[in-house]
Formats: sequence, structure tokens, C-alpha cells
Amino acid sequence: MSEILEYGRQVLAAQPFSRLLGTKLTRFEKGQAELRLDLNPDHLQQHGFAHGGVVSYLADNALTYAGGSVLGNVLTSEMKINYTRPAKGEVLIARAHVISSGKSQAVCRCDVFVVLDGQEKLCAAAQGTIVTVSK
Amino acid sequence: MSEILEYGRQVLAAQPFSRLLGTKLTRFEKGQAELRLDLNPDHLQQHGFAHGGVVSYLADNALTYAGGSVLGNVLTSEMKINYTRPAKGEVLIARAHVISSGKSQAVCRCDVFVVLDGQEKLCAAAQGTIVTVSK
Amino acid sequence: MSEILEYGRQVLAAQPFSRLLGTKLTRFEKGQAELRLDLNPDHLQQHGFAHGGVVSYLADNALTYAGGSVLGNVLTSEMKINYTRPAKGEVLIARAHVISSGKSQAVCRCDVFVVLDGQEKLCAAAQGTIVTVSK
Amino acid sequence: MSEILEYGRQVLAAQPFSRLLGTKLTRFEKGQAELRLDLNPDHLQQHGFAHGGVVSYLADNALTYAGGSVLGNVLTSEMKINYTRPAKGEVLIARAHVISSGKSQAVCRCDVFVVLDGQEKLCAAAQGTIVTVSK
Repeated sequence: MSEILEYGRQVLAAQPFSRLLGTKLTRFEKGQAELRLDLNPDHLQQHGFAHGGVVSYLADNALTYAGGSVLGNVLTSEMKINYTRPAKGEVLIARAHVISSGKSQAVCRCDVFVVLDGQEKLCAAAQGTIVTVSK
Repeated sequence: MSEILEYGRQVLAAQPFSRLLGTKLTRFEKGQAELRLDLNPDHLQQHGFAHGGVVSYLADNALTYAGGSVLGNVLTSEMKINYTRPAKGEVLIARAHVISSGKSQAVCRCDVFVVLDGQEKLCAAAQGTIVTVSK
Repeated sequence: MSEILEYGRQVLAAQPFSRLLGTKLTRFEKGQAELRLDLNPDHLQQHGFAHGGVVSYLADNALTYAGGSVLGNVLTSEMKINYTRPAKGEVLIARAHVISSGKSQAVCRCDVFVVLDGQEKLCAAAQGTIVTVSK
Repeated sequence: MSEILEYGRQVLAAQPFSRLLGTKLTRFEKGQAELRLDLNPDHLQQHGFAHGGVVSYLADNALTYAGGSVLGNVLTSEMKINYTRPAKGEVLIARAHVISSGKSQAVCRCDVFVVLDGQEKLCAAAQGTIVTVSK
């Protein structure tokens, strides 16, 4: 495992909310990140789909990782998400990448897929600004 | 308790993810909604603040309730959130209201406050589109 | 006329694009700004409404002014706009205010109204981040 | 020239605001669109860059074209734009594509490039919802 991936996993393990949900960091390298979440009944809303809040959490976190991969210690300043399909399936995968970065901020995009019967389908698309944490 | 509030609480109770987090619907009337979440250690990120995903979940859900108060059975089509301050405190409160609505969609805004030592401070501001669920 | 309003008008007069459109700064004080645009045939799209690009230009510019009123020399980092109604009328009015500000950035909201037969109607709602220009 | 491109150019020519600015539709096919604008002094703000309103107009219009390429008669419901670099150069190019579409709406993304000394550089990234016009 690369050093950056190992570090990224330590950060994720230090987030109680990510532990509560069961999120896994499955890719983390300069300019991109991938998070996965095996869906369980706790993640759902009243119609049996993953709750929008779970989807936006995963997108937000993936954007932060992508930005952090080029900036270091960061947080999400803002983001926008379009839900494109009900998140019905077994697994959520959020893939984010940096599209522009400077000294103190990066603009990133993220696609969230839901895996149903082994097929990935886009369920959300996000875009946001990641900024360095000022000491 | 009003009928609409009672109905809103039934919907919330039917969301496993909202039960997992402990969200409460504290106001629900035509054009507006308020959700509250008593923060516990499970809701935090690595710096001890409420995770951005918790804040965006609450904003998203409050936007959906606000839209639903005028449209009926709805879901969030898209939303945008600006995080304005680290969510350090005991309680999160999301207040959303409708700013424009038609037959099949409503545009809503939401302010999220974190309560620290009894004082409410804005920690996020959101805006989004809520649409009716097509049968 | 207040000093800040006079200064704001000088800045607007220094924007060739704002002169081309005919934008007027009608209010500018700490935390808020109002821009007005008398609609003429050049501002329209193919259905006779103000072009979405005119509406978003006015919202964007009003957000920048609102942020600039508390931060000084600024630019818009990002913004989101919901179009809530076709902009059919004689005048557009964009009113923006700061909802949160720090040393180097402000989060602002803006409502855009179209005036038809003397009546203001909301035609767009925007939210964005204004940042100081780094020297 | 393809029929769809010819049709798209007629629509653009029917937008007085697009004629005022001088926008050209340089690509239009199922799922994507490209608009170009030769920058002239009228398009600038006070620092000599293309005004943010010009950039957002072009992004918004390209998103609408992309959505229209799969949906027919449409308008932009909402969009979000991040400005990633001052738009200093001779030409703006907005390239938009559909990332998800249904019967009545499409989610699209757009990248806006500024061409300086023959080199394209990303100056803005947008994402938005395009909806069919209800009769």
C-alpha cells in the first residue's frame, strides 16, 4: 500500500462518523480519491434507497480527499450536488478528482455510483471547493 | 401537535438513516421546516467538529421537508451548501423555507446553526431544488 | 451620496461589460448591495425574456458588491443560481447581502427580481463565495 | 454542416443578447455543445479580464445547448459555477456535455477555457440542470 493511501486511511479511521457508516478509502493518489460504502439498512431512507444525506456525505468526503491529495490539511468550503438517480443497490462508490488547484484551494469534481447487481450507475454528481486549513 | 407535524415525524421515523443519527423534526408547517440533531461522538470528524456530511445531511433533509410542505411527496433534485464555520457545539439546527414553488418543484433555502454554550451560530447555508416524485 | 456608494459606482463605471449592459448601482452599504438594469431588446433571448446570462451576470455582480462591501477588493470565487421564473418585464433588480464573513472570504446571497407592470417578482436566487484579491 | 448544428445556430441567432456579445456555436451534437466568444473590450471588467458575467453567460448557454441536444426545447433550471482563473485572453470556449438525462431533465457539466497566446486554460467549471419547457 502506498504511503499516501495508508495516511488517508488513518485520517478516515479518525473520523467517528465515517467509522459509524463504514466508509472505506479504496484509492488515494495525487489528484484523485475513491471512497466506497457497503450499503446496509441503516443507510436508507423511507423508500429503501440510500438516503441523500449518505450520498452527499460520501461525495463531500471524496471531494475533500481529492483536494487534500494536492493541498495537505484541508476542509470543504462549499459543494454542489445533483442527484441523478435513486441510490438503489449494494454499494456506493464516490470518485473525485482535482480540476484546478492553487496554493490554498482546489476545485474538484466527484461522481457517485451505486452498484446494483454488479453494475455501476451514476447516482450523483458533485463539484466543490476545498481549502487549506489555516493554522 | 398539528397533523402535518405528526405526519412529518412519521416520515422521519421511517428513515433508518435519520433514526441512526437521532434527528428530530421540531417544526413543520406550510413553507418551512426545522430539524434538530443532538450531537454525539458518532457525528464528528477527526478534529472534534460535526462531520460536514452530518451538516449537509441535515440541510438536505430540511430542504426536502420545506419543499414537501408545499408539494407533498418529494425528493431533493440538487442542492448547494456553503460551510461557514466549523460545527463545534452540542446541537445542530437546520431551518429551511420555500422561496419559490410551482406545480412540480420548489426552490428552498436552509440555514444550519450550531449551538455552543446556548448560543446559535450559523455554520452552513444551503439552497436547493425539491421536486415531486413521479408515480 | 455616501462615499461607499460613490466608490462603488466608479468601480461599476470601470467595467466595460457593465456599461455595455447599462447596469446601475442603486444601493451599496456595509453588508449589502443592489443593482438595477433597465431591460432593452439587446438583453433578451429568443422567447422575449431577459437572457439567463443577463440574470446571472446581475446576480454575480451583486454578490461581488455585497462581499466587497465588507472585504474590500474582491472577486467571485463561485456561485450557484436557481432561475425561478422567466424574467419577463421592464427592469431587473438584484439584491445581495452577506450572510457570513471572515478575513478573506464572505458567503453572500442574492435575490433577483423582475419588475412587470410595476410589480416585483422573484426570478432568480443565488448564493456564492466572494474572496479578497491576493496582491 | 449537420442539421442539428444549423438548427442550433438559428436558435443562437434568435437570441439578441448572444448577438450583442458575438457568441458562435462551434459544435452541437447529441450530448454535447461548444460555444466560442472572441473577446473584445466590451466584455471586460475593471482589471482587463473577461467579466465573470460573460463567463457565466457562456457556461450557462453551453449547458442549455448540451441539455437541449437530448431534450429538445429547454431552459436552464439552475447552475453552479466555479471560477478557477482570471479569464485573460483572446477567446473564451465553453464545452458542455450531458452526464445524465431523463424525459424532462438533464444534468450537464461545462468547462470554460480562455485562450491566451494560442493556449487553452481552464477558467471556469460549471454544472447544472436543464429542463424541458412545458407547453
